[in-house]
Amino acid sequence: MKLTFEVTISRKPGLSDPEGTTTLKALHHLGYSGVERASFGRVISIDIEAKNERAARELVDQMCTKLLANPVIESYAIDLAT
Amino acid sequence: MKLTFEVTISRKPGLSDPEGTTTLKALHHLGYSGVERASFGRVISIDIEAKNERAARELVDQMCTKLLANPVIESYAIDLAT
Repeated sequence: MKLTFEVTISRKPGLSDPEGTTTLKALHHLGYSGVERASFGRVISIDIEAKNERAARELVDQMCTKLLANPVIESYAIDLAT
Repeated sequence: MKLTFEVTISRKPGLSDPEGTTTLKALHHLGYSGVERASFGRVISIDIEAKNERAARELVDQMCTKLLANPVIESYAIDLAT
């Protein structure tokens, strides 16, 4: 069966997020003073052929630790796309 | 009221996605032959203070077209974070 997963990768709390900080400043300069925080992450959409959802999810989890995310500074969430 | 939105930005279909293509090759080299597609996007989490959800969503939509996304090559989705 073919499944699509969405992997969302974000920085662990407490780590600096230069893109977010810069974006927040830019938004304030544009007049959006109500914005209190902006933080960036990546989302990777993956189509995978596997026996079942459980096997596919385990493979995607392996890919995250091996290649897609940096587990030292990033956390990730794996969701089945509807 | 304070609301958190998740803005997901992805390339419009048909445009090349060099990060996705390279990641797909890398995953195949690592032995994950079942992966058929990998595509990258950004996700921006925004905390905003506004009168109500409708007003906040409209502001976030403006930010997307003015700063966060490139409407020529990217599409975006705005979701209220739960």
